[in-house]
Amino acid sequence: MYVLSNQAPSPSGLPGVDHVTLAGSDNGLRNLSVWQQSLAAGAATPPHRHDCEEVVLCTAGSGELHVAGRVMSFHANSTVIIPADAEHQIINAADKPLELIAVFSCTPVLARFPNGDPIPLPWHS
Amino acid sequence: MYVLSNQAPSPSGLPGVDHVTLAGSDNGLRNLSVWQQSLAAGAATPPHRHDCEEVVLCTAGSGELHVAGRVMSFHANSTVIIPADAEHQIINAADKPLELIAVFSCTPVLARFPNGDPIPLPWHS
Repeated sequence: MYVLSNQAPSPSGLPGVDHVTLAGSDNGLRNLSVWQQSLAAGAATPPHRHDCEEVVLCTAGSGELHVAGRVMSFHANSTVIIPADAEHQIINAADKPLELIAVFSCTPVLARFPNGDPIPLPWHS
Repeated sequence: MYVLSNQAPSPSGLPGVDHVTLAGSDNGLRNLSVWQQSLAAGAATPPHRHDCEEVVLCTAGSGELHVAGRVMSFHANSTVIIPADAEHQIINAADKPLELIAVFSCTPVLARFPNGDPIPLPWHS
């Protein structure tokens, strides 16, 4: 199937994180995953890392990227670049939803806690 | 640099195609490129292919995907999946701009005409 009709993000099981996988291994891809997420006000990912590259496009709201001991703000029309294996965390410190498209150079996407343990993600990717 | 402020797409030199590279090899990435494009009414890419996977997110307008002898319509909130090496063409047959985010599992992105000749792209990727 070449053209898919997007579903809206829906509650993922992670607190405050709505998620939909727009494209990934379930669509025959081998090296690319595309996610859409909405983080509620105050929501955060755990600190984590992937063994592939990630690019996040912020489409609405604002957030904080915690990476390499630094905190950087981003907002709608920002692009966030996360190198492979870089431990990072995204936090919505604002009072409205943070809307994201996240793109990965692998599929399925494996996420790990900083100690290396895999994070069991509650969605296909 | 982890957080970039997006530029707007600007005329690329290809007729009717405004382009900006949001992320790619110039940002230290090795396996991921993210482009934003606006195709004017009536504009089209040439038939072409890439040696890596591509996912296109349509954010506004509508278009036609020509691939594998088929023509498929897509529109805002569609995701288009283009396997590696699949010859394809995107056409804006509508009367308003077609707005796209295109994601590739490689960087820089090489585009080829159907006969295999490289297409000299007028932007960094």
